Amino acid sequence: MDRQTFVLFGASGDLSKRKIIPALYSLYRDNNMPDKFNIVGCARSDWSREEFQQFVLASLGEFSRHRIDEDRNISNFVDKLYYVPFDATNIQDYHVLGDLIQKLENEDNLPQNRMFYLAMAPEFFDVVAVNLKEAGLTNVTGWKRLIIEKPFGRNFDSASELNDRVSTAFDESEVFRIDHYLGKEMVQNIEVIRFANSIFEPLWNNRSISNIQITSSETVGVEERASYYESAGALRDMVQNHMLQMLMMIAMEPPSRLNTEAIRDEKVKVLRSLRKYSEDEILTNVVRGQYQGGKVAGKDVVGYLDEPGVAPASTTETFVAAKLFIDNFRWAGVPFYIRTGKRMQSKTTKIVVEFRSTPEKLFFNKDSNLSSNTLTIFVNPSQGMSLSINVEQEKSGVVEPNVIDFARETKNSPEAYERLIFDAMNNDSTFFTRWDEVSLAWKWIDPVSRSFANGHPMHSYESGTTGPAASDELLASDGFRWWN
Amino acid sequence: MDRQTFVLFGASGDLSKRKIIPALYSLYRDNNMPDKFNIVGCARSDWSREEFQQFVLASLGEFSRHRIDEDRNISNFVDKLYYVPFDATNIQDYHVLGDLIQKLENEDNLPQNRMFYLAMAPEFFDVVAVNLKEAGLTNVTGWKRLIIEKPFGRNFDSASELNDRVSTAFDESEVFRIDHYLGKEMVQNIEVIRFANSIFEPLWNNRSISNIQITSSETVGVEERASYYESAGALRDMVQNHMLQMLMMIAMEPPSRLNTEAIRDEKVKVLRSLRKYSEDEILTNVVRGQYQGGKVAGKDVVGYLDEPGVAPASTTETFVAAKLFIDNFRWAGVPFYIRTGKRMQSKTTKIVVEFRSTPEKLFFNKDSNLSSNTLTIFVNPSQGMSLSINVEQEKSGVVEPNVIDFARETKNSPEAYERLIFDAMNNDSTFFTRWDEVSLAWKWIDPVSRSFANGHPMHSYESGTTGPAASDELLASDGFRWWN
Repeated sequence: MDRQTFVLFGASGDLSKRKIIPALYSLYRDNNMPDKFNIVGCARSDWSREEFQQFVLASLGEFSRHRIDEDRNISNFVDKLYYVPFDATNIQDYHVLGDLIQKLENEDNLPQNRMFYLAMAPEFFDVVAVNLKEAGLTNVTGWKRLIIEKPFGRNFDSASELNDRVSTAFDESEVFRIDHYLGKEMVQNIEVIRFANSIFEPLWNNRSISNIQITSSETVGVEERASYYESAGALRDMVQNHMLQMLMMIAMEPPSRLNTEAIRDEKVKVLRSLRKYSEDEILTNVVRGQYQGGKVAGKDVVGYLDEPGVAPASTTETFVAAKLFIDNFRWAGVPFYIRTGKRMQSKTTKIVVEFRSTPEKLFFNKDSNLSSNTLTIFVNPSQGMSLSINVEQEKSGVVEPNVIDFARETKNSPEAYERLIFDAMNNDSTFFTRWDEVSLAWKWIDPVSRSFANGHPMHSYESGTTGPAASDELLASDGFRWWN
Repeated sequence: MDRQTFVLFGASGDLSKRKIIPALYSLYRDNNMPDKFNIVGCARSDWSREEFQQFVLASLGEFSRHRIDEDRNISNFVDKLYYVPFDATNIQDYHVLGDLIQKLENEDNLPQNRMFYLAMAPEFFDVVAVNLKEAGLTNVTGWKRLIIEKPFGRNFDSASELNDRVSTAFDESEVFRIDHYLGKEMVQNIEVIRFANSIFEPLWNNRSISNIQITSSETVGVEERASYYESAGALRDMVQNHMLQMLMMIAMEPPSRLNTEAIRDEKVKVLRSLRKYSEDEILTNVVRGQYQGGKVAGKDVVGYLDEPGVAPASTTETFVAAKLFIDNFRWAGVPFYIRTGKRMQSKTTKIVVEFRSTPEKLFFNKDSNLSSNTLTIFVNPSQGMSLSINVEQEKSGVVEPNVIDFARETKNSPEAYERLIFDAMNNDSTFFTRWDEVSLAWKWIDPVSRSFANGHPMHSYESGTTGPAASDELLASDGFRWWN
């Protein structure tokens, strides 16, 4: 791996503390960092280098999957940490940062390879990108890369504008847009499961599959994120990125090669085939909801409107379910149901592929309780795969589904951010989102957002349930049900 | 279930003691016998009724899967046991038997439903059938059925003759030819797995399957059965019946209904499509072997020629492997490899369905150690199913096969004989072999037997191995290997 300088903007923030700093440390500890590197933190806080180092140690103590008190060499890692107090709108600060980077590159004999990670509020994404160029930090003899967190815009127009500005300083090939779901092991395994096993491709189409269900449910409410969430809602927070990404992974055609651009080419074709809905069709095929009070895991919780920071008459959705169609030869007529929500019954991200049923009357001479075959990919928090198969039960002779599965050991396994940062450091953008994916996703989302802004029915649902009844009806009208 | 009289010929023999009597008792204990019945044992031994009852109790004590000392009502079962000393060639004994049956039917108010079970040497099968008619025992107001053990003939001609004679006394619909492999749970489950799950039918053909392997290996040698085995060999003992039956179950077309005749119609079509080999093709596609001394499970064992009762220059085969082709649309070009032997490395009966491999070069950017997907049906001694799937390994990132499976609890599960006797009592002959199956199987076997009689190469193999090298070469020449 190339020697490089890792510049972390928003270094004092929540995401850095919980995810990025622990990921960098885990990579270091697992020998997945370059043999030489420096990490420069930038944030508003007026910290000294030592204060940042203390902050990092405290973050690791709380959030690392490793026990740092068992690491006798942790000072080697801490020695690579630097800090610059930073105002993203002040060009002078960029010069100070640039000078420090250059000085460290010279002292440590590092090539001018610079990774800029924007772990900050989205309104600064383009500001930082443009100013980095303005102050000459992108003028390097090595390489430069930019990692951008979500959200990338809040509709197609704002995303386009943002992209145009970022593009003035970084090529598309240098921009790594993070969707941390793409860093999850089982999401990455979808392409392996599909394309490393000959038994799935013959089944992966509308002749064998009746419907596909993608669920990402949380038990938590809006927590301390109301100020962000109020303007985003589940549609922008989850559907535009994570849910559509999982849809693309599960539905794409086999790529010509399993390499970055071949895969992203196929993913984007899924969005191109995604049926655009008229206003009426959006009303029929998209359900939104907002949680009311209820019980989650035995504890009373308040409704969304009573959460701190939420407007008393807020129409922000905390739940979205939708029926989608991919109008290509493979998937014609197969509904894809997606569903995401807060304060749901269980925390789970999973994809259920439901196969068509067998001829019902074949088994007239046996007792049977047949169920469709389903292949379930468990993404989070459990990781693994299961297949349900009907077999004749031993004693009773009744034919009933049995589940065969493998589960992954999830304890202490690498986190999504580790995989993704590692990939970016290796210039592998397979599991980052390309601009055409982002833009097409917004083009599908925008009409739905407009419907939401214009009185789309809001269904309330009790906390701790599987969401509003309208979500169940979406499937029931097609003769299906959610596999909960 | 109809009230009936169960007449067991060969009641004092090994099969009765080990299998049939325990099966009848288990059915009784599990409330799977009619509410009223009698069992009449017949054998050469000059026993009284009490002596037969003692023999039954001793058999159950040794071979039943239930503990009879925990059964406080076992005397109820023993009370239903009667005995007639019997010479199968003496017509007078049939009259004595007939009188006893009729007397018991009258006393116990049983309808004239009579099940005749021939657990005796094959040379008596037709003798008993014909004499039963001659003495009027088949002249009933209820129903009569005949259960026949293997072997049913020793070639097509002798089987035809036997069948003609049996047919003078019993209709084809009244004849239940036992193949106890068809009583095994997972063999019966093949039809359920294939036809109760929509995911398998699209894969079950030459587009997705590269080859199918059926193995039935034993660790034991010829034991005390040399006199029978010397004249049978593995070909007649295992291939003509059990191996071809499993082949039919795995390869048949979906039946119009899962009922007896529809299933047997489809099974027989497999044999009709089974490629007939020329003399030269038999030499290429069939391997026979004979075990030499060696070690099995750490113990020294002698070679076949040193077994008691075996002729010093015996050319009886204890191992057969063969490559078969089913020349129909579904299976064109797919080799079916069958293999059976004594004194092998492990005791196992299983069917491995190997799927085609995926495009090899697709994964050029990942470390991979891909293996073909395989579906394995474990018949004996473990029962269950497993599927091997390539997934990306967690830490290493290498794509390798993982196995997902379910295993059946085999402890104290019903034995094959229980299922089969139960079925026969219920007039369900699905898992019994029909005459056209038997006759077509012999027609395929006969040229192979002739080749064996005419100097077909005999490969010796060391006891405790997977058989002769020629068996491995049979697959290697097609680019495959046995899944051991």
